[in-house]
Amino acid sequence: MTELPAGATIGILGGGQLGRMLSVAASRLGYRTHIFEPGAAPAADVAHQVTTAPYSDEAALRAFAASVDVITYEFENIPTSALDILESLKPIRPNRRTLAVSQDRIAEKSYLNDLGLQTAPWAQVDSEDDLRAAVEKLGLPAILKTTRLGYDGKGQFKLTSPDQIPEAWAAMRGAASVLEGFVAFEREVSIIAARGLDGSVSAFDPGENVHSEGILRTTTVPARLTPSQRSDAVLLAAKILNSLDYVGVMGVELFVTRAGLLVNEIAPRVHNSGHWTQQGCTVDQFEQHIRAVAGLPLGDGTRYADVVMENLIGDDMDRVPALLRERNVAVHLYGKGEARPGRKMGHINRIVKG
Amino acid sequence: MTELPAGATIGILGGGQLGRMLSVAASRLGYRTHIFEPGAAPAADVAHQVTTAPYSDEAALRAFAASVDVITYEFENIPTSALDILESLKPIRPNRRTLAVSQDRIAEKSYLNDLGLQTAPWAQVDSEDDLRAAVEKLGLPAILKTTRLGYDGKGQFKLTSPDQIPEAWAAMRGAASVLEGFVAFEREVSIIAARGLDGSVSAFDPGENVHSEGILRTTTVPARLTPSQRSDAVLLAAKILNSLDYVGVMGVELFVTRAGLLVNEIAPRVHNSGHWTQQGCTVDQFEQHIRAVAGLPLGDGTRYADVVMENLIGDDMDRVPALLRERNVAVHLYGKGEARPGRKMGHINRIVKG
Repeated sequence: MTELPAGATIGILGGGQLGRMLSVAASRLGYRTHIFEPGAAPAADVAHQVTTAPYSDEAALRAFAASVDVITYEFENIPTSALDILESLKPIRPNRRTLAVSQDRIAEKSYLNDLGLQTAPWAQVDSEDDLRAAVEKLGLPAILKTTRLGYDGKGQFKLTSPDQIPEAWAAMRGAASVLEGFVAFEREVSIIAARGLDGSVSAFDPGENVHSEGILRTTTVPARLTPSQRSDAVLLAAKILNSLDYVGVMGVELFVTRAGLLVNEIAPRVHNSGHWTQQGCTVDQFEQHIRAVAGLPLGDGTRYADVVMENLIGDDMDRVPALLRERNVAVHLYGKGEARPGRKMGHINRIVKG
Repeated sequence: MTELPAGATIGILGGGQLGRMLSVAASRLGYRTHIFEPGAAPAADVAHQVTTAPYSDEAALRAFAASVDVITYEFENIPTSALDILESLKPIRPNRRTLAVSQDRIAEKSYLNDLGLQTAPWAQVDSEDDLRAAVEKLGLPAILKTTRLGYDGKGQFKLTSPDQIPEAWAAMRGAASVLEGFVAFEREVSIIAARGLDGSVSAFDPGENVHSEGILRTTTVPARLTPSQRSDAVLLAAKILNSLDYVGVMGVELFVTRAGLLVNEIAPRVHNSGHWTQQGCTVDQFEQHIRAVAGLPLGDGTRYADVVMENLIGDDMDRVPALLRERNVAVHLYGKGEARPGRKMGHINRIVKG
């Protein structure tokens, strides 16, 4: 196992809040970061270097790769052409195979099913006729999603009546889509797990998530799970990480049902539902990811506190002055300019029990 | 009280590890930082902007001040001429009065004694004759120190015999000096306290320090103190902060003696002996300092864990691979290039009890 030496530079694709917190974690381990981001980059405030260029700018990609020792990312929808260039120059962790699987909902669900893991029932939809057949097969309600570039509820349509079929298909704008059948889940949980370059796996305690309008609102640890559900979640995450020869942190969203745990989706990166680890563990998900991609040993992710993470979305920012005065509340702001509705501006970790 | 708005920039004089960790804390609250540092700047890796210029460069100082909303510092020996320029342009927190007091050991001891606080016995020394008289008055052993620019054991001479008087005085190279009499202390502790722009004061739990060769090695919380010593430490720190109309975090080093607490020295900044707060509190000393200088309310500095902070000095860096594998150990590295003997390269916080 080759460890990245102190002072080495980690390249991060994407300069949002996840890149920002990854950059801080990298600094704690003595590394520098170089952020590649086409748009505004909150991560730039805490990075050694920033490249502002589109993913189509081959010269910028080459210069970026030349300046770093290893490349990682904070989001999964990186254009394949950019990855082809970067991968020829420097290691990308997590690997391309993982990105290929996670960039496409159908590839992802097929991969998980082939591993023997359960997902919501699904059907490929490439036309209105496909959608009609899929609705017949899976029943309603169901959710139609584009197979690519979905994030925080975008590119999704919830169908409750067959009358909506034309409207739903139109909303996909002709993109390859997938219909996901309704799952009567008891709760949504996620497990944040890491795999090191040496193949070791370490999972954080599962968190219980509450979404609203497709956006994560809160994560609570510990999640209400039976001991066997808890170990199922860990084993399932380890199976995914090992099978992909994964290096880094992955977020695995799960539905808890009477029939067991169903995988909703995987995110090959640090995950919003893992932010609680900043206050609940000696080594948080950001440092764990940096350790993994740098070839360092994974750290101690044992949970030592009960925590409720709450996202600050849009005008939740108005609550910050009061939150700064609360006991046992750690405030994390992302330095974004405008608090638009639905925009993640920060989060808090409320320590419920120390 | 005027709060610095989100997205504002905090100027930091000094780009060492303290500036680095202040910069990370500022980012967590949505602020940017601009570092001013004549030499190598580990803080630059996590700062929005860096100015590399000497403190004699008036144009650089003016440009720096123009780009920031408030100015703070990570070390107290900032040249007065630079402060004169900066202060005419932007608020400096903590204030000039504090710097005047803490930049000069005699001014500091006089100030503390005038406040009714005890220090080690001391005498001003401006010549070999003064030193001889001082040794006669205070006895031996005693320590001769230059009144200015002392840091980590530099500019100090320990006298154990009158024969050393010429050598000791020669070591001061003619600089104004102070002889400090021997104190039979039971232990060394420090208290890290903060005062907000609104005048509120909050102190972290005192830590117990072990020095070696003039350099801090470990800080352990809780310190072995009686309840009355503990409250004495807090009251004493509050007295200093209030009397100076201080804004920010201050480190106050204390000797615990049978005759009560003696003030060894004050540092008008975040302090090495406060690094344990990163793992022991919801709001650490770095965020507390940023909150204060930004005019935000002070945060919750309640200690929720027993912690031993240990500095990684010089070739202690060889221990890092093993430390990264230990449970309950948080590793903090400063990204400095060369691990020279006596150089602070990082620290660990070992959580002893959660």
